[in-house]
Amino acid sequence: MTTELITGIRELTSQADDGVRLRDAALVIEHGRIAWLGPSAEAPAADTRTDVGGRAVLPGWVDTHTHLVFAGDRAAEFEARMAGQRYAAGGINTTVAATRAASEEQLVAGAARLRREAEDQGTTFLETKTGYGLDLASEVRSARAAASVADLVTFLGAHLVPEGMDRRDYLDLVTGPMLAAVAPHADYIDAFCEVGAFDVEESREVLLAGRAAGLGVRVHGNQLGFSGGVRLAVELGAASVDHCNHLDDRDIEALAGGATVATLLPACDLSTREPFPPARRLLDAGARIALATNCNPGTSYTTSMPFCVATAVLQLGLTIDEAVWAATRGGAAAVGREHGVDAVGSLRVGGWADLQVLDAPSVAHLAYRPGVPLTAAVWRRGVRSRHGGLDASGGLDA
Amino acid sequence: MTTELITGIRELTSQADDGVRLRDAALVIEHGRIAWLGPSAEAPAADTRTDVGGRAVLPGWVDTHTHLVFAGDRAAEFEARMAGQRYAAGGINTTVAATRAASEEQLVAGAARLRREAEDQGTTFLETKTGYGLDLASEVRSARAAASVADLVTFLGAHLVPEGMDRRDYLDLVTGPMLAAVAPHADYIDAFCEVGAFDVEESREVLLAGRAAGLGVRVHGNQLGFSGGVRLAVELGAASVDHCNHLDDRDIEALAGGATVATLLPACDLSTREPFPPARRLLDAGARIALATNCNPGTSYTTSMPFCVATAVLQLGLTIDEAVWAATRGGAAAVGREHGVDAVGSLRVGGWADLQVLDAPSVAHLAYRPGVPLTAAVWRRGVRSRHGGLDASGGLDA
Ligand SMILES: [Zn+2]
Ligand SMILES: [Zn+2]
Repeated sequence: MTTELITGIRELTSQADDGVRLRDAALVIEHGRIAWLGPSAEAPAADTRTDVGGRAVLPGWVDTHTHLVFAGDRAAEFEARMAGQRYAAGGINTTVAATRAASEEQLVAGAARLRREAEDQGTTFLETKTGYGLDLASEVRSARAAASVADLVTFLGAHLVPEGMDRRDYLDLVTGPMLAAVAPHADYIDAFCEVGAFDVEESREVLLAGRAAGLGVRVHGNQLGFSGGVRLAVELGAASVDHCNHLDDRDIEALAGGATVATLLPACDLSTREPFPPARRLLDAGARIALATNCNPGTSYTTSMPFCVATAVLQLGLTIDEAVWAATRGGAAAVGREHGVDAVGSLRVGGWADLQVLDAPSVAHLAYRPGVPLTAAVWRRGVRSRHGGLDASGGLDA
Repeated sequence: MTTELITGIRELTSQADDGVRLRDAALVIEHGRIAWLGPSAEAPAADTRTDVGGRAVLPGWVDTHTHLVFAGDRAAEFEARMAGQRYAAGGINTTVAATRAASEEQLVAGAARLRREAEDQGTTFLETKTGYGLDLASEVRSARAAASVADLVTFLGAHLVPEGMDRRDYLDLVTGPMLAAVAPHADYIDAFCEVGAFDVEESREVLLAGRAAGLGVRVHGNQLGFSGGVRLAVELGAASVDHCNHLDDRDIEALAGGATVATLLPACDLSTREPFPPARRLLDAGARIALATNCNPGTSYTTSMPFCVATAVLQLGLTIDEAVWAATRGGAAAVGREHGVDAVGSLRVGGWADLQVLDAPSVAHLAYRPGVPLTAAVWRRGVRSRHGGLDASGGLDA
């Protein structure tokens, strides 16, 4: 194994605890991890050297909320929604039917394509979920497909009660045989705690069953109304509660006082025309937030963490540093990977070399230049991905 | 000269007068123009053949409002604004000072880099302006730089009264010697009709002087308040009035009844936190709208027409077809290039082969997949640009 020195870093956002952007930095990669990091002038020798030409370097995005395991097409439904038209087709049930009909190979291929697309935009850690199978065999197939493409798998049998099934029977299935069959392939359990899906009591039952089976707990909560999902998440010490569009003062207090991260999904809010979550109030109250794409074919079909970061700054009132933190280290906090040997979302000596180079001198450009593809290069576990932007475009000073 | 057949087009948006998206289409390019266009099954033979693999094809973007000729850096000012902080530095005057200090070569290099970045995102026709020189020599240098990178040049000496100059003296300069020196390099004259810049009377004086010198007329109007710029534009039969954030009923009536296109700049609105223009009301009243980036270092530093289109659908209430029209043929209408031998913004037999291929089966994905770079390939005047996405990613059906 050789060492690789990365130089020419105009601005290094490490997301280490001091929160400072280091100017004119360098770092060394060895065995997939950061072996050294500091001012350019003090950089040690290494076997190979890559000059990033005055660009900004930051941790790869940590996208902790996606639904990549699905089949079928819902573009026409989206287009009708944007035109203010009712759409006759079945929404999520369309995806469930297509996912059940798909082979595991097809599910893996679709999810892998989206994962590659995400990595081309700087994502180096990605969670994905089951939840479009909703029968035992399809959920197991979905979980295996998820595990083959993602860094973390969430079991979301409690996404909704499938058509034609008794509510109680389905809850017994999810918390019994389905959980037993899926748990070996999953890290977290999740429940969609919302009017029309599962209420607080049902969600608690599912989440506690998952915890008893050894899974971590996370919750879809308060997307469409004051569902109680946020307070349930905090009560259970969930790692994260996701969406958080509708929060009252008690919800915000609970998040500020608890260990649960509020994961915000602004691309989904735009695509569904849901009001944005009160991000500024959460931060000002002392809560921690993460940003994720919620990539799924129904309500947020984007893999673009840069778009989420830009939207968070331009429209949710976050500063650049807050938004970048939420999309990297905040994501790590939302999946319990902030510290330790498998930590992600920050650049520190001994940690994974999961990093991205922007085609810009500063992370500020992520919001200053919305929509412009700025991912110049990506390293994951110390390995440079196929992205060629760095070589094609030369130094920023050129 | 050879002929090139482009096949495998899942959906062809021609922006011809019928407004229909053609399924399973093909087209032939010859001498930089479209020689044939129609259903795949009827495609004629050609010398070469490019299969776009089930992707969508549409006209290249027509970006009719940019300020690419500038020097200097204002990222820190943007970042401070997003953090809600006052920023001591001089805003636009910073750019004016840096632009005056820059050589023509430097101005050309900066503008050319942004033009390439725009083309990589599908833009095949681009307007740009003077307006950061504000003295005779600097405006002439800016106009020459603009002409060397853009398809259309606008003289915006009436951007603001430069620091340290008498208002009346400056108007005499802009409408006299500066106009005479810049006009040979320009197509349009423009005035920033806004509180703090130029009032309606001053703007009218500038615009009429420009018209007398043979230039077309366009206006920056109603960005920050009810400036009267919109009604002035309609009164003068301007090709376009740009911004249009603050419109009263009479403004909307005037636009609906006149020939002037309302050019909306949603990326600028996000970056300045100005309310979006009433796009839906404009369309419902019968006005025509265009979408443009307003790329400039102060208030909208993006070249991304896909971002503008996505924002127009997700947040301004346009349908996909309305937004794509506004960003192609609407732009053409805003610069008087909708018809004739040099028409842009539509694909028709005899017209320029200015087109883009999306990494998606439908234009709907431009808003369905916000932030995801979807430009697979671009042809301008029949020549494929250096973008390699089409080859790298293979067919969508693969
Ligand atoms: Zn979700
Ligand atoms: Zn402008």
